[in-house]
Amino acid sequence: MTNKYSITLLPGDGIGPEIMAVTVDVLKVIAQQCDLEFSFQEALIGGAAIDATDTPLPTETIEKCRQSDAVLLAAIGGYKWDNLPREKRPETGLLGIRAALGLFANLRPATILPQLIDASSLKKEVVEGVDIMVVRELTGGIYFGQPKGIFTSETGEKRGINTMAYTVSEIDRIAKVAFETAQKRKGKLCSVDKANVLDVSQLWRDRLNAMASQYPDVELTHMYVDNAAMQLVRNPKQFDTIVTGNLFGDILSDAAAMLTGSIGMLPSASLGSDRPGLFEPVHGSAPDIAGQDKANPLAQVLSAAMMLRYGLNEPLAADKIEQAVLKVLDLGYRTGDIMSEGCQAVGCQG
Amino acid sequence: MTNKYSITLLPGDGIGPEIMAVTVDVLKVIAQQCDLEFSFQEALIGGAAIDATDTPLPTETIEKCRQSDAVLLAAIGGYKWDNLPREKRPETGLLGIRAALGLFANLRPATILPQLIDASSLKKEVVEGVDIMVVRELTGGIYFGQPKGIFTSETGEKRGINTMAYTVSEIDRIAKVAFETAQKRKGKLCSVDKANVLDVSQLWRDRLNAMASQYPDVELTHMYVDNAAMQLVRNPKQFDTIVTGNLFGDILSDAAAMLTGSIGMLPSASLGSDRPGLFEPVHGSAPDIAGQDKANPLAQVLSAAMMLRYGLNEPLAADKIEQAVLKVLDLGYRTGDIMSEGCQAVGCQG
Ligand SMILES: CC(C)[C@H](C(=O)O)[C@@H](O)C(=O)O
Ligand SMILES: CC(C)[C@H](C(=O)O)[C@@H](O)C(=O)O
Repeated sequence: MTNKYSITLLPGDGIGPEIMAVTVDVLKVIAQQCDLEFSFQEALIGGAAIDATDTPLPTETIEKCRQSDAVLLAAIGGYKWDNLPREKRPETGLLGIRAALGLFANLRPATILPQLIDASSLKKEVVEGVDIMVVRELTGGIYFGQPKGIFTSETGEKRGINTMAYTVSEIDRIAKVAFETAQKRKGKLCSVDKANVLDVSQLWRDRLNAMASQYPDVELTHMYVDNAAMQLVRNPKQFDTIVTGNLFGDILSDAAAMLTGSIGMLPSASLGSDRPGLFEPVHGSAPDIAGQDKANPLAQVLSAAMMLRYGLNEPLAADKIEQAVLKVLDLGYRTGDIMSEGCQAVGCQG
Repeated sequence: MTNKYSITLLPGDGIGPEIMAVTVDVLKVIAQQCDLEFSFQEALIGGAAIDATDTPLPTETIEKCRQSDAVLLAAIGGYKWDNLPREKRPETGLLGIRAALGLFANLRPATILPQLIDASSLKKEVVEGVDIMVVRELTGGIYFGQPKGIFTSETGEKRGINTMAYTVSEIDRIAKVAFETAQKRKGKLCSVDKANVLDVSQLWRDRLNAMASQYPDVELTHMYVDNAAMQLVRNPKQFDTIVTGNLFGDILSDAAAMLTGSIGMLPSASLGSDRPGLFEPVHGSAPDIAGQDKANPLAQVLSAAMMLRYGLNEPLAADKIEQAVLKVLDLGYRTGDIMSEGCQAVGCQG
């Protein structure tokens, strides 16, 4: 029996279309090898959508995504759209699709590959073997909290406001994903908050503690976000799974990613309670090298592997893709961003 | 003419009292050398204050601080007080004194000393010459914004809330400090925000841009906080002066501090529009090594130097202290936290 999946592709902006094209080719090969059938449909998001439809997230795109089994996104944004009002910015499209699909759990691995360890700005002995999974809450916190805006007070002074808020159920559902993720990894879960200052963090910490008894095989610890930023730099090997809110997760997952020195390699998965999940590289749209066959497509290819593993429950196909990526590195092929001496320079298309 | 200064000492908890004692000794020597006169008075804060008075910030402490020319704080906190309700936590005392003295500008240098470069977890060529000043807003933002708390909704569900807010005047006064700081340094100011998501950041960015024309000798750039966390790891040398809000400053200044690998060396200054300023090391109270003559007192000593430079306008005395610290390192004396081969191990008292 052939498993059939419909996949919505959101190539987006900058290098998005070219890394997506390579990834679709990889998926076609995998389909044959693993007896899967993919039907692909494209949709607009970000700058590309603004240019074509005057909105970064057309309703049609949301509909297409909702009807598919998984969404593969490349990258959004670029200088061209940087000065538009917020509701017309590419980022607003990204936040919109996360909210529309209820993608509350963002999984961001930061893994040091032995082949690329020299790319790290950290000493080899500090990063060797680093394998961190950041579980970031993605549809709550200060990204979506109300009230927000820029208001003028009675005295006529402007005041900018955002609200960082979490309800118990929002915390519990991301905590569940995090505990289960830690269970499948080394069983260590570090929850990051700022409970010494923030009430919302205190509730976060209380809930994590309350849920810990359901996961006796997971060792739960807590760390303040400032200390976590330090410890990631000082000794990243101490971490296995990290769980944190939307804003702290944005910051820490990028710091963790940069420990590897090769963010052109890092995928991510955004999951809701049901399909479809959304899968995208951690890196941006790199408008400066777009269309020059220079982009590293591997984070996008690995995002497709995450899609197979976490979104479509096809772990064998995911394994195959990940092995293929490692093999390409073992053979010494490198795009410019990860190039090093003795390797063979290649473009995005290989 | 002898300049006379009254200084309130807040030794606090853990290693606080011992590093403070060493620092007072240093100040006494400097007073003689530079023809200054210091009158010292001690006051309680943090855990020490909780134990003695049941509050982390007694009114008497605030009064003593207000009446002095400068406040020297060591460190607060410890496991012992970790599970008290928020209003009785040591941290609440620290936040309280910042607010009471109107200390809106927090200057946190992260400088790599050639003598200690091996302590960094980053490669030598990445951190060599790093010299960053983080200007962190300290009395606003999500640390103090209202409403905050844990509320129960109509459906009976708990919701934790904090508010990140800045008014134009709050932004303008920290921006002024930041531009002036950059002017005295290399003239490069990087403002860090999350303007692609947060309204409060958009107002922040707009104000920084509006003020830039008054400082034609300063080159202003903007960076998103997630990218800043990455860039600090990837290439910290690109930064000169960074200005950011309270929460982002908490996280990024700690990340920047850890680049040096020796946070036992890093001082900070917290300034209001008038005296007294407050000066404290970046590191914590290290309860595990308290009272064992193991603590590194140099961050506290360098905080006294910042006090002289930024708080009392005595740059010559500040220079002398900083030179003395470098000399101690040149002579090869090291406490345990910065010990390396071929150096001479010493305790807190030297
Ligand atoms: C582009 C931006 C809105 C987004 C975020 O902050 O979530 C990005 O930084 C990310 O981490 O996916
Ligand atoms: C102890 C804590 C409240 C404090 C803060 O978050 O400001 C500390 O981390 C600091 O940076 O001085």
